[in-house]
Order: sequence, then structure tokens, then C-alpha cells
Amino acid sequence: MSNRVAVYRKEHFNAAHRLHNPAWDAATNDRVFGKCSNPHFHGHNYELVVKLTGEPDAATGFVMDMKVLSDLVQENIIERFDHKNLNEDTAEFRSLNPTAENIAIVIYNILREKIEPKFDVQVRLYETERNFVDYPA
Amino acid sequence: MSNRVAVYRKEHFNAAHRLHNPAWDAATNDRVFGKCSNPHFHGHNYELVVKLTGEPDAATGFVMDMKVLSDLVQENIIERFDHKNLNEDTAEFRSLNPTAENIAIVIYNILREKIEPKFDVQVRLYETERNFVDYPA
Amino acid sequence: MSNRVAVYRKEHFNAAHRLHNPAWDAATNDRVFGKCSNPHFHGHNYELVVKLTGEPDAATGFVMDMKVLSDLVQENIIERFDHKNLNEDTAEFRSLNPTAENIAIVIYNILREKIEPKFDVQVRLYETERNFVDYPA
Amino acid sequence: MSNRVAVYRKEHFNAAHRLHNPAWDAATNDRVFGKCSNPHFHGHNYELVVKLTGEPDAATGFVMDMKVLSDLVQENIIERFDHKNLNEDTAEFRSLNPTAENIAIVIYNILREKIEPKFDVQVRLYETERNFVDYPA
Amino acid sequence: MSNRVAVYRKEHFNAAHRLHNPAWDAATNDRVFGKCSNPHFHGHNYELVVKLTGEPDAATGFVMDMKVLSDLVQENIIERFDHKNLNEDTAEFRSLNPTAENIAIVIYNILREKIEPKFDVQVRLYETERNFVDYPA
Amino acid sequence: MSNRVAVYRKEHFNAAHRLHNPAWDAATNDRVFGKCSNPHFHGHNYELVVKLTGEPDAATGFVMDMKVLSDLVQENIIERFDHKNLNEDTAEFRSLNPTAENIAIVIYNILREKIEPKFDVQVRLYETERNFVDYPA
Repeated sequence: MSNRVAVYRKEHFNAAHRLHNPAWDAATNDRVFGKCSNPHFHGHNYELVVKLTGEPDAATGFVMDMKVLSDLVQENIIERFDHKNLNEDTAEFRSLNPTAENIAIVIYNILREKIEPKFDVQVRLYETERNFVDYPA
Repeated sequence: MSNRVAVYRKEHFNAAHRLHNPAWDAATNDRVFGKCSNPHFHGHNYELVVKLTGEPDAATGFVMDMKVLSDLVQENIIERFDHKNLNEDTAEFRSLNPTAENIAIVIYNILREKIEPKFDVQVRLYETERNFVDYPA
Repeated sequence: MSNRVAVYRKEHFNAAHRLHNPAWDAATNDRVFGKCSNPHFHGHNYELVVKLTGEPDAATGFVMDMKVLSDLVQENIIERFDHKNLNEDTAEFRSLNPTAENIAIVIYNILREKIEPKFDVQVRLYETERNFVDYPA
Repeated sequence: MSNRVAVYRKEHFNAAHRLHNPAWDAATNDRVFGKCSNPHFHGHNYELVVKLTGEPDAATGFVMDMKVLSDLVQENIIERFDHKNLNEDTAEFRSLNPTAENIAIVIYNILREKIEPKFDVQVRLYETERNFVDYPA
Repeated sequence: MSNRVAVYRKEHFNAAHRLHNPAWDAATNDRVFGKCSNPHFHGHNYELVVKLTGEPDAATGFVMDMKVLSDLVQENIIERFDHKNLNEDTAEFRSLNPTAENIAIVIYNILREKIEPKFDVQVRLYETERNFVDYPA
Repeated sequence: MSNRVAVYRKEHFNAAHRLHNPAWDAATNDRVFGKCSNPHFHGHNYELVVKLTGEPDAATGFVMDMKVLSDLVQENIIERFDHKNLNEDTAEFRSLNPTAENIAIVIYNILREKIEPKFDVQVRLYETERNFVDYPA
């Protein structure tokens, strides 16, 4: 068995969004997304958990210093999305529907580029306490 | 000592809002409310706890049937605010700044009218897990 | 201002119950209590929080040693109600409807006798995460 | 790497049960299951988390609409088990011991038939905050 | 009824401590405080909730800007106690036993001086999820 | 598909620690570990979740009786580390840096020896609500 440990860091951000497919008319959006497609938006307290898997460093005992991981998530994700309207204020969701699934994929893709390939990365995003997603599965 | 018991029912709703005083210019709003005044809105998963104080009924053992209290909160509060943009979609916050304090006062005033005077009512509103308010104090 | 501090200790127990007024016929019980009156019972993980208010002892800095308070609650409440059918197995609820309100009153009355009068006592009982009560109010 | 995302939906139900092997005498049941074999039952607030893994739909951005998944769990699981005595009121546990392990297996088997084979399904069941199970492992 | 609203802000800090009365010999400390008097210390993740009661400002809708309250708690409490050994590293607990009761009183006294008298202040301190205190009661 | 179920048991302990590499001088420790290297220690409420995977026993419906698993964790882990200074009071961390990663590995190695090989074992350790680790990954 390898010595790999998974470390997790939880951060949060608050954002507005609406679910909306611009290729569809209003009636179709309303039928598919219901009150989630309110054109004036609604919002969530998103909880984000980033999982990093690797071998602990022999000198520090850390897979990655949690302070470093936290700063990386703050700078690349929280500053980008916190207190934003995802549909209106962010390039990522101008034409991509901001479902929890798509937000998790976008966050993963941003973080994957910033983290050394020797680490595995996975993202969990809580849209509410009762609805959440993991990517990659 | 009286026989009064306090009963609590927790419900939740998701909404978008921005903090904004229309009597101020954009620079003042920005200085006072910071990123919370983003003109495109942000949002929260609000958790609402309604407290009702009274004497248990001798026949049922209930201060109020929690199902009845839950339905009352659903019909009067959750249907009104859930998946809404508080500033844009609700009459209550068209000219009232939707701070947690003001949202709690509005919710209290709506519920107070629907609940018999023999019961005391108090509202707790969680804007996030770390920021919450009670009204009346 | 006095030097009084409130200390809280949280314990839990699992129990079955049904809501039922023996003075009523089955149809009335069913109409008033709905699925909560299922004659075969249902159950809960009850969370109990005992609040004790008093002045910290000058030598220890404790209002009451939490270990002592925890043992008192274990011996008088948890051993009595944990893994029990409240209606069938306990003298307290043979003829008293085990609503959250009545369970809190019963627990308070038991603890009040075991705790010195110089301390104020209050009981909070969570029937579920979303339904809970305080006694005295 | 595939594009698969796991989505989770959390629901809850309250039920009574006892642990009991009908092939054993009372003394053996008592020795093995202790206070969990109380013939008058005890109960729990069960928290159920259903995990579904698949590819997000290109048009909606959903693996499955959480409202659809929630309704599916409500209709097939919650209505069947909520406010029930698992041993007495349900066909599934008349002769199967309602341990958390067995309840999770039963729930999985019911849901697996209702969900398209292209999705992977997993069930997590919390019997208490401190005891929980996953099936399949 | 007045218009007063209570606002709450939750912060946290991690610290080591031991319970110890220097006026007593080791055997007495051990008998009274048990494993909590371990001379090499143990520790906690303390959760601190500061409650402020006052009237919302007419222009902002805030009792106090939560960002201002959070900064006040960070500067005066968290920087003082976070990642510290309360007995060894802090002037406040050199001769005062760091029970949850005494820590709450010390925090209250520090904050009370920094907050305008028109506001009421109360401190809740969680030593663990199951043990917590309020001051003033 | 096999019939394997994962069962989880959550326990907790409170401990003091400091992060420190004895091969480094104080300045290097301070630069790498920051306030976590405070020579007087700080502390945490650790939450430990032990996961055991196996087939439910046909007669009991248990993978392992949770009471047995809880006792095993209490005797081998909680009694060893609760209310201890990990660096000073425990043989395991006299020369091993007590990061969350290393604590999880140590706990896993202790439990792995006590649990039959037919079961898979995994350890999750929460250092705070926002920082946690799994071993093996």
C-alpha cells in the first residue's frame, strides 16, 4: 500500500445565479428549471471542499501546507466568485449554465492547472446542505 | 412559574440581494457596503427559525402543532421569498435595504399578524452560518 | 451586573413514541396527530441541552463541573429514556402524551429536584434538527 | 478523464425499530443486541444521502434534476418508511433485521430499479450522527 | 416594543490549556480537574459567538456592520488567543484558571470596553460541541 | 456486485500539539510552520471517523457491531490521545511531527493491527471543521 493521504480544505462563497439555457425560449427554461430560472436571480451560500491526494513530505509531514492550499483557493476561486452574480459578473458562466455540476467542473479546471500533477485533485460543492456534487466522480 | 414552553421551527429559503441605499450615490454605497452592494446581486441560503412561546394545550400537549406552524411559515414567508431577488421581486424590499436585520423585522411583522396574540413570537435569521440575527432582541 | 454564567451540556438519547390522547377515539387521534399517531410507533434521535445558570466558584472557575453535570443527566435522564419506547416503557408517559413539549417538562422536573436551588435550570430538546423546544420559556 | 459528476441528495425519515433475529431466543437476542433489542422498540431520525453518478446533460447542465431525484426518493423511500415501525409496518423488515446495513441495502435495491442503468447509485444512511453506513461500499 | 435587534458573529480560535489552581497541590488539582489538569496541556477548537443588541441604523439597516464586528473580534480576541497556550502565553490566564466560564468572562470584559455603551454585549463560547457557556447569563 | 457495506463510527478527542521538525533550527520551524510551531503548544478538538468495509453477517445484519467498534477505538485511540499533549505525552509523536496527516497514519496503523484482515479500514481525521484528512487515500 502506498503512503498517499488525502487532505481536504473547506472554503465558502456567496453568489447569485439563475439556471437558464440561452438556446431555449422563456417557456422552455421555465418548464425545465422552474423557480431556479427566475430572471432576477436567486442565491446560495456555496461551501467548497477541495481534496488533494499525495504523499506527505518527509520533513514537514504535510501533503501540502493547508495555509498554502487555502490561499490558492482564496486567490483563484473565492476572489473570482464571492459576492458575484455568476451569470452576469463572471466570464466562466456567461454562456455556461451555472448548475452545481458545471460550477464544480469550472472550479476543478481552474485549480487543476495551479496544482502540481503529482497531486490528485477533486472538488466537492455544496449548493445547499441537501444538494451537493463531486467532480471528478 | 408559568407552564410556558417555547417551540421552534426551522425553515429555509434561497434568495439574491444587494445592500444598497437609494438615497446615496454609487461611491457611498460602495464605501459603506463594499462587495455586498454589487449591482448584479449575490445570494444566500437563508435559514429561518421561528420561536413561538405559549402554554401547551392540555388535550394535545402541543403549544402549536409544528405541522401547522411549518405550513404557516411556508405559505407566508417561504413562498414569498424563496428563489427570489429580494430587491427586485418583492414589495417589502423595493425601498428597504435587505440586511439580515431588516429581513428579520419584515418576517416578524408578517408572522405576528397571522399568529394569535396569546403567543409570543421571535424570529432568528441566519444569513450565513457565521452571521445571524434575532428580532425582537 | 452579577457574575452569573450559563453553562450548557448536550446529551442524546434514541427513543420510540407515538402521539396519542387515550381520551379520544382512533379517528380523532388520527385527525389531530396524523402519521405521528401510528399505533406501531416511530422514533427519534433526541438531542438534549441542559442549561445551568450560577456564579462560578472562586477556587475552580466552574459554575458546575461539566463532568458532574453530564453524569447527573446520564443517570437521571439518559438511562431512563435511551432506547426506550416512551409510551410503553416509561411511567412518565403512560398517560401523558410524549410531545416534545411534555418530554421537556418531564425532564426539567426530574433535573430541577436534583440540582441545588441556587442554580437556574432550563431544558432544550431537539426532536429533529428542525423541531425543538425550551422549558421553561 | 471522463466527464462524470456525482450528485448527492439528502432526505430524512423518522422510524422505530428493534434489532432482533427471530431464529434466536430472547436471551440470545438480548446478549447480542443489548438495549437495541428492546421488544417495545426505540427510534431514530434517519438521514439518507443518495449519490448518483453520470455525465451532465449538455442542454441542462444537470446529471439529474435534483427536484426529480428528490421526488423519486420521497415517493419510493420516505413515504414507505417515514413515521413507521420498520419491524411491524414494512414488508421489507418483517423477517430482515433492520440494522443500518440492511436498511441501506434495501433502500439501494429499491432505488436501483427506478434509476436508469447509465447512472451509478450509492446510498449513505446515518442512523445517528456518529453511526452511518454506505452501500455499495 | 422597541426596535432592538440582536446580531451575532461567530469566530474561532485554537488553543491549549490546562485546568489548574496554583493554590492547590498536585493531588488536589488532579482530584478536582482530572485529566483536564494534565501538566503538559491539552487543547480545543474554541467557537466564539459575540451577540450585540441595538437599534438598526436608519440609513444602513445595520445594528453594526458585521465586517466591523468581525474585525473587532479578530483584532482583540483571535489575535490574542489563537494558536496560544492560554496558561503560558497570555497575561489573562497566568493566574486565572482557563475554564470556559473564565475565558468567556475575560473575552466579554475585553470586548465590552471596545463597544459603545448603547449596545448590549453577550459572549457564547463553545469549548466542544457538547460543552458551552454564555456570559453574562 | 459484492455485498460489501462500509460502516463508519465517529469518536472525538481533545489534544495539544505543536508542529516542529527537531532537525531544523527555530527560525526554520517558525518560517515553515508559523504560529503552529508555538513552543508552548496550541490544541484541537479532533473528530475521528473510522470506516470499516466488509460483508454483513447473515445472522446479525452487522458488518461489525458498532458498540464493539466504538469500544475498540476508545481503548486503542481515545484513551491514548485524549487530553494529552501529543508531542510530550505520547511515544508516537516524540520524534514524528503531529500533523493531521501523520496522526491519521499513526491511528490507522494502530487500528489495522486490531481489526481482522477481512475488513478494509480507513481513517478520517478532522483537525478543524475546515481541515481534514483521509488515510489511506
